[in-house]
Amino acid sequence: MEEKKDAGITVKKSENFMEWYLQVLTKSGFMDYSEVSGCIIFRPSSYGAWQQASNAIDIEFKKAGVEDVYFPLLIPEKLLKKEAEHFEGFTPEVAWVTKSGNTEMSEKLAIRPTSEAIMYVSYSKWVRSWRDLPIRYNQWNNVLRWEFKHPTPFIRSREFLWNEGHSVFATEKEALAEGKQILKIYQKALKEYLALPGILGKKTDKEKFAGAVATYSIEHVMPDGWAIQGPDWHHDGQKFSKAYDIKFLDREGNSMYAWQNTYAFTTRELGVMVATHSDDKGLVLPPRLAYVQVMIVPIFRNENAEKVMDYARKIHRQIAKKFRARIDDREGYSPGYKFNDSELKGIPVRMEIGQKELESNRVVLARRDTGEKIECDAKEAKASIGKLLKEMHESMYSKAEAFLMSNIHAASSYGELKTLLDEKKGMISAPWCGKTECEEKIKEETGAKITNVPLKQPKMGGNCIYCGKKSRKIANFARSY
Amino acid sequence: MEEKKDAGITVKKSENFMEWYLQVLTKSGFMDYSEVSGCIIFRPSSYGAWQQASNAIDIEFKKAGVEDVYFPLLIPEKLLKKEAEHFEGFTPEVAWVTKSGNTEMSEKLAIRPTSEAIMYVSYSKWVRSWRDLPIRYNQWNNVLRWEFKHPTPFIRSREFLWNEGHSVFATEKEALAEGKQILKIYQKALKEYLALPGILGKKTDKEKFAGAVATYSIEHVMPDGWAIQGPDWHHDGQKFSKAYDIKFLDREGNSMYAWQNTYAFTTRELGVMVATHSDDKGLVLPPRLAYVQVMIVPIFRNENAEKVMDYARKIHRQIAKKFRARIDDREGYSPGYKFNDSELKGIPVRMEIGQKELESNRVVLARRDTGEKIECDAKEAKASIGKLLKEMHESMYSKAEAFLMSNIHAASSYGELKTLLDEKKGMISAPWCGKTECEEKIKEETGAKITNVPLKQPKMGGNCIYCGKKSRKIANFARSY
Repeated sequence: MEEKKDAGITVKKSENFMEWYLQVLTKSGFMDYSEVSGCIIFRPSSYGAWQQASNAIDIEFKKAGVEDVYFPLLIPEKLLKKEAEHFEGFTPEVAWVTKSGNTEMSEKLAIRPTSEAIMYVSYSKWVRSWRDLPIRYNQWNNVLRWEFKHPTPFIRSREFLWNEGHSVFATEKEALAEGKQILKIYQKALKEYLALPGILGKKTDKEKFAGAVATYSIEHVMPDGWAIQGPDWHHDGQKFSKAYDIKFLDREGNSMYAWQNTYAFTTRELGVMVATHSDDKGLVLPPRLAYVQVMIVPIFRNENAEKVMDYARKIHRQIAKKFRARIDDREGYSPGYKFNDSELKGIPVRMEIGQKELESNRVVLARRDTGEKIECDAKEAKASIGKLLKEMHESMYSKAEAFLMSNIHAASSYGELKTLLDEKKGMISAPWCGKTECEEKIKEETGAKITNVPLKQPKMGGNCIYCGKKSRKIANFARSY
Repeated sequence: MEEKKDAGITVKKSENFMEWYLQVLTKSGFMDYSEVSGCIIFRPSSYGAWQQASNAIDIEFKKAGVEDVYFPLLIPEKLLKKEAEHFEGFTPEVAWVTKSGNTEMSEKLAIRPTSEAIMYVSYSKWVRSWRDLPIRYNQWNNVLRWEFKHPTPFIRSREFLWNEGHSVFATEKEALAEGKQILKIYQKALKEYLALPGILGKKTDKEKFAGAVATYSIEHVMPDGWAIQGPDWHHDGQKFSKAYDIKFLDREGNSMYAWQNTYAFTTRELGVMVATHSDDKGLVLPPRLAYVQVMIVPIFRNENAEKVMDYARKIHRQIAKKFRARIDDREGYSPGYKFNDSELKGIPVRMEIGQKELESNRVVLARRDTGEKIECDAKEAKASIGKLLKEMHESMYSKAEAFLMSNIHAASSYGELKTLLDEKKGMISAPWCGKTECEEKIKEETGAKITNVPLKQPKMGGNCIYCGKKSRKIANFARSY
C-alpha cells in the first residue's frame, strides 16, 4: 500500500502564512502552477468553486437587467490609446501580440487587460438615441496583466478570470443608482457563497481605477493581517464616453455624452476564501462552493466488502440528487488515509460507513470545519447533511466576520496609527482631511495605504491624523496586498 | 416616430445565401463585427444561446464523469513543439505574444489554438500510477486561430469559444469507449437544444485532426448545399503521451504510456443553427436557446394605455418564472414595428395583448417559425406557451432533418458523383477504396473532400468510384466550408 506520509500540510497557518497558503492550494489539488510564470491551473476544485460563484452572481445580474455578451480577446493599440489615463494605467503590463504564424502584424494587438477600449468603440456605434439606453452588458472572461511583482496564486495572477460589467446610461443619476445594486449583488455572493465579509467603501482619488471618476470597493483582511481589495464598482462619469465618442440624442434632440460605469468580481476572491477559511489540516471550503460536498468513506474488510459497498452506493443514490456526493472507493488506501485526504481537500462533510452503520442502518457524518461528528438514521441522511452544510456555512461566515471585526482598530493620532500598524496590523480607522498629500506622506512613512473610506462611517471624531486640519471622513489605513 | 424602414432583411435566403446570412446575424442583433478582423462580438442573443447550449452539455459531461478545469491562455513555444504533427498543423495560424509592456520576452508565447501542449505537461506531472487514471478534464474557453482564409462569423472566426475535453486512460479499450459517450452527448445537445441533425462518421486519415490517430465528426449540410463540420472527438492513441511523457505504473508495476482522447464543440454550431433555421424575415431560434422566448407586445391607444399595460404586466408575472419573457414597452414604436422587430430577432413566441384581449381575459400567441396564431385564456397562457415552444422545437428539428436527408445523394460512378456535386450539391455517398490517393485525386478534380465515412453505412455496393478497386466503405463527398 502506497500512502504518501508527506502529503499533508507541514507548516502552521499561524507561523508561516504564505508557505501554508501555497501548500494548502497545491497539496489539496485546488490549483497547480503552470509552465508560464504567474499563470495558474484551475483544477476541478477551484474551477468548480468559480462556476458556482459566477453562476450565483450571473443569476442576480440577470434579475437586475444585466445582459451577458462576449467581446474579442485582442485590442488594437490605437483603441487602447484613446483614453489617456486608462492607457497609462495599463500599458506597462500589457502582453502584446505582434506576429501571426511567421508574419509580423501591421499593428500590435493587446491581450485585454480589461475591455473598455474594445467595447466602447462598439457602444459608440450602437448608441444613437436615448431609446438605445441603458446598455448594461457584462462579460465573463479571462484577462491578462503582465505584472512584474511577485505573483501569488489567485491573489496576484497574470491571467485571471472575472466578470467585467460595462454600463451606459442617459443620465448621471441613473448611472450612480446602479452602484448600490451591483455592490449589493457582490456582497450577497460573498456572504452567501464564499462566506466572506468585507468593508464597503469609497476608494480615494489616488487609489481609484485608472480612468474612473469614483471607485467603490469591498475590502478584506487576510489571516496575516494584511488588507486585500475585493470586488469593485467604478463610476466613470463621461470620461470614456468623451474618449470613445459615445453620444446620444436626448428626448429634446440634444446631442449628449453618455454616463458610464464598470464593475468586476475576480478569481482573486477564491484566494481570499481559501486563506480565510482553511486550517492546518488543509483546505476548508464553504459548502455551496465545494466541488464535492459529501465524501462517503466505506470501511470494510474482505469479508464484508460487498455488503458495505452496496450500502454506501444505496446511500449515495439517496443523496446524490441533492448534493455533490462521491464514494471514495479507491483501492489500496486505508480509511484513515481517506479521512485525511478528504480533510486536506476541504470536503465539507465526510460520511463514514462501516459494519456497525450497516447493521444499525445508520451513518456517521463528520463536519470539516469543526471536526464534529454526528450519527443519524440512513433515511435522515439527506436532511441531516442539509442542516450540517447550512450550519457550517453560517459558522464559517460568523468566524470570518469576527476575525475581520477584531482586525479593525481605531487610531486618533499618527503615533497610534503607526503603533497599531506594527503591533496589531489589520485596518486602522483614522480621521483624514481628504487630501492626497497626507495620504501619500502616510504611505511613504508607514507603508500603509487607504483601503477605502467606509460607507458605514465609524463613530469617531478628531482632526486629520497627519496634518491636524479638519477631518472630512474616517478612512481605513492598511498595509495591503 | 422614428422607425427604420430598412431594418429588415433585404435579400432572400434562396437567392443570395451568404449575404442573407450576414444580414440575419447583424440586423437581428445576434452578433456584430469588431475592430479586429475575424473576431466577432457575441451580443446577448448569441452569447445567451451559447450559455444555454454549453450548460446543457456541461450537465451531461458531469453526469458522465468529466470535470471542468481552466488552464492558461498562453503556451511557451517549446511546449507547442513537442508533438511535431500537432505543431506543424497549428503553427501557421498561431498568434504570438512577444512583448510585455515595452520588454521583449525571452521566449515567445502562443495564444492557445488548442490546449494539448499546456495541459499535457501537467498531466505528465500528475500521472504516476494507474491509481491516478483516468483523467477526464474539460475546459470551456476561448481559442485563437489566425487563419488567412476569408473569415465568416461563427463559421470561420479567428477567435471562437468551445469546450475542449482532454482525457487520459490506462488502456486503449477504455479510451475508445469514451467516444460513444461523448458523441452521444453532442448529438443530444444538437438535437434537443440547437434542433440540428448531423451525420456521424469517421474522418479519413487525410482530414483527421493534426496529431490524432482517428477523428469522429458530426457533419451538417448548410442551406446552400455546402457541407460543414460540426463537433468532433479524437482518439490520440499514445501519440501525445509519448511526446509529452505521460507514463504510469500499471498494476503489475510496468511503466506504460497512457491512451488519450480530445473532443470539442464550438460556437461554429451557432452559425449552422442560424443558417439552418432562419428565414427571409430574420432570425429563427430554437426555443430552448432563445435568449428571449416570449415577447409581449401591448397594443393600446392613449385612453386605454394603463389598463392594457397592467394586463400585460400581470400576464408577464404569470409566465416569467417559467419562460424568458419580456414586454416590449418601448415608447414611440407602433405595434406593427414591434411585431417585425420580434420576428427579425427570432423570438419564438410573440404575445399580442390589446383591448379585445383585455376584455375577454385572453391572449394571442404567434409562433415565429410558421407564423401560426392561436388564442387562449389568460390563465392557460403558461401551458399554451409551453406546448407551442415544444411543438416549434420538434417541427424545426424535423424540417432540418428532412432538409439534410434530401441533400444526401448516392453516386455509383465517378461521373455521377461529379454531376450530383454540380447539380444537387449536398453530400454524395459513394464507394471508396480507402486510399488517400483516390481521395486526393477526387478533391483535386472536383473540389469535394470526404466529410466523413458514416458509421451508419448506407446500403449500397460497388467498387471505388475513382480507381474501380474493391471498396472498403461508403464515404460522403462534399464541397465543404
